[in-house]
Amino acid sequence: MAGLAALSRVRVVLSRPSHPGNIGAAARAMKTMGLAQLYLVAPKAFPHAEADARASGALDVLQNAKVCDSFAEALEGTVMAAALTSRQRDLCAPPRWLPEAADELLATAQLGAVAVVFGNETFGLTNEEAALCQRTVMIPANPEYASLNLGAAVQVIAWELRRQALAGNLRALPQTLGEPATHEEVERLVAHFEQAMIGSGFLDPEKPRRLIPRLRRLFGRAGLEREEVAILRGALSSLERKI
Amino acid sequence: MAGLAALSRVRVVLSRPSHPGNIGAAARAMKTMGLAQLYLVAPKAFPHAEADARASGALDVLQNAKVCDSFAEALEGTVMAAALTSRQRDLCAPPRWLPEAADELLATAQLGAVAVVFGNETFGLTNEEAALCQRTVMIPANPEYASLNLGAAVQVIAWELRRQALAGNLRALPQTLGEPATHEEVERLVAHFEQAMIGSGFLDPEKPRRLIPRLRRLFGRAGLEREEVAILRGALSSLERKI
Repeated sequence: MAGLAALSRVRVVLSRPSHPGNIGAAARAMKTMGLAQLYLVAPKAFPHAEADARASGALDVLQNAKVCDSFAEALEGTVMAAALTSRQRDLCAPPRWLPEAADELLATAQLGAVAVVFGNETFGLTNEEAALCQRTVMIPANPEYASLNLGAAVQVIAWELRRQALAGNLRALPQTLGEPATHEEVERLVAHFEQAMIGSGFLDPEKPRRLIPRLRRLFGRAGLEREEVAILRGALSSLERKI
Repeated sequence: MAGLAALSRVRVVLSRPSHPGNIGAAARAMKTMGLAQLYLVAPKAFPHAEADARASGALDVLQNAKVCDSFAEALEGTVMAAALTSRQRDLCAPPRWLPEAADELLATAQLGAVAVVFGNETFGLTNEEAALCQRTVMIPANPEYASLNLGAAVQVIAWELRRQALAGNLRALPQTLGEPATHEEVERLVAHFEQAMIGSGFLDPEKPRRLIPRLRRLFGRAGLEREEVAILRGALSSLERKI
């Protein structure tokens, strides 16, 4: 599935979340990255005002969230589920670092629904839950302090999925908002500089010391706008008049 | 600068943050990704108990944070500063999508200190502040809802920097924790399956229908552990005894 369409096949499963605020933060994190399907397994408190508050403009994600009684129910219909864990454990499904896991999930989304699964804030996933997932994901965080809270973990994974879904499809940002100067306008500016510097005595035409090539290189790198050329030439003219 | 060492040259600048909780969340986000240098320009309330609470295990980042009176002071010593903005604006420094900005910042960190700059939660950066930055960064978020809170934005950018700093340096995760089965052990398992399926009548040796190659392919893909081979052979033996 090309690009962003794959994101619509990714569900986020929060198993037994304790804090409704974290559910809201997860919803907001999801929506900012274009994910919409939230599944909640036996949430301690939901719906809840604190979830709504933290969701901010992502209330629709909360309103459409599916509340499930069992973990297995949240995975119904998926062809791959990847459980976030902080460490490798016995009998775990094949572990992946996040970038590789996101790549695999997006590729598999071509075949059907996929899930990213987050355990309880304190206890994580049970062994039984982890065993129902075909992959485990680990975020290669700072080994001395790898403690992302639930909302932050959802945000990182949602961004990584979006980044990969967008990869190569990000339209280049225009680097100037003004009208770009033409080649001739820049060359006239360079000539103007040369004339002014000779006039001021800074540049000896007998020993030009590569000043002009360096100015041309600077202007080229900067990508001058037409208005900037006018400002610089106006400044040069005013200085020349003072001489 | 190779890999993670570049992260030690990246400072995070929060300009006039209103909510101390966001300062704490930023500190936590930074530390999880290996960033340590936090600069605060005229924070509304700092130090503050809420900042400490949200920082969780990243109190050291708060304790080492530099509080600056002016924006310019926070950029002292940097060779590049990139300001997060949500949109392109007039007279802005060259805009970059996050992945490209992170790449450029890490490359520039070879030359000196670099900064990622975040404005006030509500008002963003002033034009004067933005003008002191050599780049603007935009997160290519969902155009219909691009509202990351301050802590989430720091988390996404910190992860992107770490991801790129790690790229290619992530040690492959071992895919089995148990002792892997040898070639001969897997082949003996395949032979055992063949014998049992012939015994049960499921496999007709005259018309084998590619059953054995498919089993071998499955076991190869799974990467069997020695103990798993033992379990499967034990199960086959017990079934054979019943026949």
